[in-house]
Formats: sequence, structure tokens, C-alpha cells
Amino acid sequence: MSYLFECIECGKHYLPGEALYLCPACSAGQKPMEPLRGLMRIVYDMEAIGRSFDPEAAAARNGSTFARYMEIFPISSADSVPPLFGGATPLRPVPNLRRVLKHDGVWLKDDTVSSTASFKDRASALVVAVARESGRDTVATASTGNAATALAGQAASAGLKTVIFVPRKAPPAKLAQIAVFGGMLVPVKGTYDEAFELSRAACDEFGWFNRNTALNPFTTEGKKSAALEIWEQMGRRSPDWVVVPTGDGVILAGVEKGFSDLAKMGFVDRVPRLAVIQAEGCRPIVDAWEAGRGEILPEKKPRTIADSISVGVPRAGRWVMQALARNGGACAAVSDEEILDAIALLGKTTGVFAEPAAAAGVAGLKKMIEAGTIKRDESVVALVTGSGLKDVAAAGRAVSIPKAIDPDLASLKKLLS
Amino acid sequence: MSYLFECIECGKHYLPGEALYLCPACSAGQKPMEPLRGLMRIVYDMEAIGRSFDPEAAAARNGSTFARYMEIFPISSADSVPPLFGGATPLRPVPNLRRVLKHDGVWLKDDTVSSTASFKDRASALVVAVARESGRDTVATASTGNAATALAGQAASAGLKTVIFVPRKAPPAKLAQIAVFGGMLVPVKGTYDEAFELSRAACDEFGWFNRNTALNPFTTEGKKSAALEIWEQMGRRSPDWVVVPTGDGVILAGVEKGFSDLAKMGFVDRVPRLAVIQAEGCRPIVDAWEAGRGEILPEKKPRTIADSISVGVPRAGRWVMQALARNGGACAAVSDEEILDAIALLGKTTGVFAEPAAAAGVAGLKKMIEAGTIKRDESVVALVTGSGLKDVAAAGRAVSIPKAIDPDLASLKKLLS
Repeated sequence: MSYLFECIECGKHYLPGEALYLCPACSAGQKPMEPLRGLMRIVYDMEAIGRSFDPEAAAARNGSTFARYMEIFPISSADSVPPLFGGATPLRPVPNLRRVLKHDGVWLKDDTVSSTASFKDRASALVVAVARESGRDTVATASTGNAATALAGQAASAGLKTVIFVPRKAPPAKLAQIAVFGGMLVPVKGTYDEAFELSRAACDEFGWFNRNTALNPFTTEGKKSAALEIWEQMGRRSPDWVVVPTGDGVILAGVEKGFSDLAKMGFVDRVPRLAVIQAEGCRPIVDAWEAGRGEILPEKKPRTIADSISVGVPRAGRWVMQALARNGGACAAVSDEEILDAIALLGKTTGVFAEPAAAAGVAGLKKMIEAGTIKRDESVVALVTGSGLKDVAAAGRAVSIPKAIDPDLASLKKLLS
Repeated sequence: MSYLFECIECGKHYLPGEALYLCPACSAGQKPMEPLRGLMRIVYDMEAIGRSFDPEAAAARNGSTFARYMEIFPISSADSVPPLFGGATPLRPVPNLRRVLKHDGVWLKDDTVSSTASFKDRASALVVAVARESGRDTVATASTGNAATALAGQAASAGLKTVIFVPRKAPPAKLAQIAVFGGMLVPVKGTYDEAFELSRAACDEFGWFNRNTALNPFTTEGKKSAALEIWEQMGRRSPDWVVVPTGDGVILAGVEKGFSDLAKMGFVDRVPRLAVIQAEGCRPIVDAWEAGRGEILPEKKPRTIADSISVGVPRAGRWVMQALARNGGACAAVSDEEILDAIALLGKTTGVFAEPAAAAGVAGLKKMIEAGTIKRDESVVALVTGSGLKDVAAAGRAVSIPKAIDPDLASLKKLLS
């Protein structure tokens, strides 16, 4: 569908080709270690689309959420979507978890079973689709984790090249996974921020498409697919709350964008209230919200087991603060201990294996239900954003593995007693 | 749907309650370390079902494959299926892999995105459903990892207890995953085969429902769901071939059972030819087939990187040999090096990250296409049975990680040149 870029700060519109990434006006003077200024959202003629769009027809179509809802995605052909990107991920009813939380309206949006096992597939797949339609053959990003893996995997299935900048101290497991997908891996002697700056310079130099999260507006737009799926899976209704583990803030921005588009088309009354969950050791958004500040102060030394939300400078932070103010959100921080407990709680009540950042959302959900922030008669969807298989060491801290026994009944009886 | 057990050796029928697990007559004198005798299949009145069954209606239903095809599964309520068990896994067209293999008819059935990231969810979910309907609260199994994980996860979502016997050398990811799902984990000092025997003795001793693969006929029946999905996803047709990484042989038996049921209902002409892929270091079925023997001689020292098919005593081996003879199958063994190459090939052409056993199927597919066993005008579905995230150490052997560079453009240009 044809689209424009709209700056979230000044509201100015740009045609594709006229701008890309940040609003030139609002991002002037941007400093490296602060939330990005002049983030752009993708906008369509929503009222016109709302008049002609048929939800029944979309629901009956096969394929990815981008293909089924192509009217409100910035692509012109379903064939552009990488073959790896799948259909909707499950919205799980979780009866046992509801019993433990004493809350009948809890649902999990389970992206642990996404194609590369994280929510980041949504952003990467749309970026790859856009790259294909604009004739770009190489996409680059700086990342150490799920975003890099998702980009490498989605691009591999579409036959595009990727260049992935990682700090050399990134976990070997994640490096191996990126390498398996054939991404050109560039380990950098330096921090994540140095890798990030090098990736930007390299994109300028070589004309690569820059997938860096938040900076690239298609990352946010790709993530809105989760909102459309939730709406569809709940029988075309909004839940009262969506609980979002939050690092850079792009998932939250994407979810808000999705429900906001649905509202503009007249399919929902309102955007759900959004709950930001951060780790105690890295809570710049929670702090800004609690202090009633619009400005987010970077956390210089993030310290949490939840690596995927260990983001000292939330790049989409300014969008997040706007969204919280617009829709009446809430924020909470959870400790590493609460995160580990949530990994075990989720596993034993639902069979969903979450990485620490994903379990942080469930820890926050528990906290907000107990505090009465999320009421017992409200419906709530918690996003489970990444698979525990991506961080087995963390899972090992959440549970204990018994010692091996000899293969006989006597040894077993001893273990059981 | 009401059902009987039928012995695959003598053809005798048993009512539920009258027998369970193996045929009492044919399994008499069974020795511990040999393929099981008297395996049972679940049978229904297929002709009657075929007359009334409406595939359009089944396709339009929501829910798991068991729920949608309840007429040909041994459960009486869709509510018995564990909430974790999902819809159909993707059948991927994989254009880039087709180009490399010079074969236009290749499809991947991708169970890396199943709820606990392996094909074994199919068997475990049906066993849990049956356990719920028969009022059993504890299910036990021995497993190299994936079956155990699947059982622990599916049972957790349904509120059932599990006892899991694993060889202590199982990959740490699998152990952590089982523990997170709250399964009672019993690591055993010994091989899978020794863990298997201990679990059987323990089920006899404590009255637990025994999910051991092959022994429990519902495991094979659960796995038939893959055949139904493939048939549905190919537009209600059989492919010419299904390529199956093979350890115990239950996946192959399940796939054969599914297509055979479809044939009995009159929905397909024939069962596809089945390709057994084993590892060079553990190839008892391949050896028996190549020697023209009906009997499978156990491999006493399985040695392969592909832990999920490192099975010296293929418990469903007798069913596999029958199926190969009935449908005109083929066998091949692949080296660990070929398996590692296949992990990388699959990753960079499709974005699918496979564990070694799953990649073995693709290695075998490549070999059989090159040998002309699988012809270029035949359609072929390769099962990708488990996620590479379950064994990242193996992936690290499949690819190499470049050395780190200084964070500047000059160093990057040097690396690129």
C-alpha cells in the first residue's frame, strides 16, 4: 500500500525517497547516547482503507500477517515477504497460569515459536520485504541478539545479504546462529555503541539498508503485526492491557501503532493500556515515568540477566513516553530474581520456555495484578518475546538439575524418597 | 473416535483396556536390547469414516490437528488436547535450497517452530490427551531429549505430572528445558537404551503411564498428524517421497500410518515412498535394509553428533522394515561432516536452524537426489525435526566466526576485500 513517513515529533510528512530513517529537521543535533529524535511512523489513508477493508476476507487469506493485511503494510506484493516469515503466532489461554495469578483474563502472545524464535522476526521480515521491493540486496544492523538473528534468518530465506556488526564479546552461541544463517559477521573490538556507529557509517559508505531498530521506521511497522494478530485472535476485540518487556521501546511502539491503525479504521474503540516492564538494573523508562519527566535519562551501567532489554539508551523512548501519555499506561521494574521465578512459573504452568527478557513481562504482569494496577475483570495479553533456548545458562539459574543415578530401580527409589 | 489396538505382527485386535503397549502374544520373550516385538497400531473403522468425513469441514476448523481430525484420533474431546499443542507447522517451499539441490520439488516440514521446538510434541501431546481421558495423572518416559522436553511441556500445560529419564550426556539445553517445565528429571548414568529399560521398570513399579516411544502406541498415532498436515498443505495430495531422520523409527512409522489412514479413507492413492536417513555412526536400519535382512542388529556403540537419532536399538525397527517393504522405500547413512554441512546449507538458504539429527535428513535428501534415488520430477518433503537452538555447540562446529576488527571503516574495508 502507498504510504508516507510522519515524524512523531513535528508531524511533518515525507514521501518515500524524500526521507528515510529519522526526520531531518527533528533529528538535527541528535547526540549519540540519547533516545532518537525525529522517529518516523508509516502512515496510510486509514479512513479510506477502513471503508473498503474487509476483515473477513483478510482472515480467510493464507500467508503471513503482512500478506493478509497488505492494505496496511508498506509493501505492494505478498511475494516480497521472506518465505521464512510465518503466520500468526499463538495467543495462548493458559488455564494453569490463570489459576496461579488468580486472574481469568490472562493471555500469552507466544513469539517463542516464531521462525527464529523471537518477536524480532516481525521487524526483520518487513525490513527484508521493503529491501526487496526497493531493489536493495544488502541489509546491515548492529546487534548482539535476537534482532541480528532474525535479520540473518529472514534475509537468508529471501536470498538477501546481511552484514551484522557485533561487539566481539557477544555470546558465542548467538554468533554461531547468525553465522549458520550465512550473515556476514563483523565482530568489532569495542562496545555495542561502537559497533552501532560503525554500522551507520558503513551503511552510508556502501549504500546498505540500515535495519537498526527504531532508526529504521519499518522495524516499528513490522512489529505492529502482533497487534493485528491479537485483535484477530480475540475475536476482533482489543484487550484492556498489553504487557510489554521493554528495552529500546520499539515493540511497545509497534503494538501501539497496530491498535491505533485499527482504531483509525474504526475496528476498535481504543488502543489498549500499555504496561512497560523493565529490569531493576536497567529502568530508564520506568524512572522517567515515575518522575513525571518526558525526558529519559540513559542508564550508563545496565545490569540485568535479561540481556534483550538491557538497553541503557532506549532508542524509541520518545515514542514510548508519548504512547503512555496518550493511552494511560503503567510501568514496573522487576528484579533478576523475579525474572528467574517467572521463567519457572511460565514453564511449569504453560509449557512455554521464555528467555529472561520475555519472562520479565510475566514477572511484571504478576506484580501489576497483585498491586491492583491490572484489575481482575480486565483482559490482559502478555507478550512472550523470545525463546528460553536462546539463553540456556539463564534457565539453568532458574531451576536445578539433579545428579545422575545408576540405571537401576534401587537408585531411582533412593532419588524419589 | 472409538478404536482398537492391532498388532503389527499377528494382526490380532484388542479393545482398549484389554491390552496396552505391546501385543501380549507377540511380545512374549522380548529381550531388552532389541527392537520391540508386537508393536500395536491404533485402528478405526476407516471405510465408514471415509464415507462421512468431510475434509473441507476439517480444514475450516480451528485448533490442533488432533482436534480438527478428531474422527481419526483416539480421543473423544478436543478439550483433552494440551493447550500448548499448536496448529499445523509450516510446510516451506524453500526456493534457494531448491536451486542449490537442483530440484524443484523440495519442501521442508518445519517442526523447529513446534511448541517445544521439536517433532516430538506430536507424540507427547496425544499421549497427554489420552492420559487425561483415562484419568492418569503421571506420565513417564525415557528420551534422548526432545521427547522428554515435549512431554514435560505438553503435560505442564495440561496440569499432569511427568517423570523423565535421560542419559546424563543429553545436551544441557534439553535438560534445562525439561527442568523449567517442572518435569521430575532423572539423569541416568548410561546410554539412552539403559534409560529406556529403567523407565519401563519404573512404570511397572509405580503405575505411571509409559510414554516410551514405539512401546506406547499413541506416540506413533500422534506423529501421524504430520502426514495429515503435509497432505492438507500440499492441496490434499501425497508427495512422492518423505525423508525421515531415523533413530527409533517412530516418526517414520507415524508418517506411514497417517498416509495409510488417508489411503484407507480414499483420500490418497498411495503412501509416499519413505526415505530413512541415519548417521554413519549409528545405522542399524540402513545395514539391515542393505543386507536384505528383516532383522535389525543393534548398534552397541552409537557414535554421532546427531544425538536425537543416536539410537542403537531402534524400538520401532520392525514397523520400519515392514513399511519400507510395503511402500518401496530407501535408506542412506550420512557422516557427521555431511550433517554439519547440511546445518549450514539449510541455514543460509532457508533461515531454518536445525539440530544435527534434523539436518541429517537434509544431508540424506541431498545424497539421494545426487544418487538419482529421488528423481528430479518427484516431489519430496524432508522433515526438519528439531531446532538448532537445542544444540548450539554442534552449530558452532558447522560454521566459523571471523576475527574481530577495530571499530573503523578502514578496518571494515580490509575485512571486506
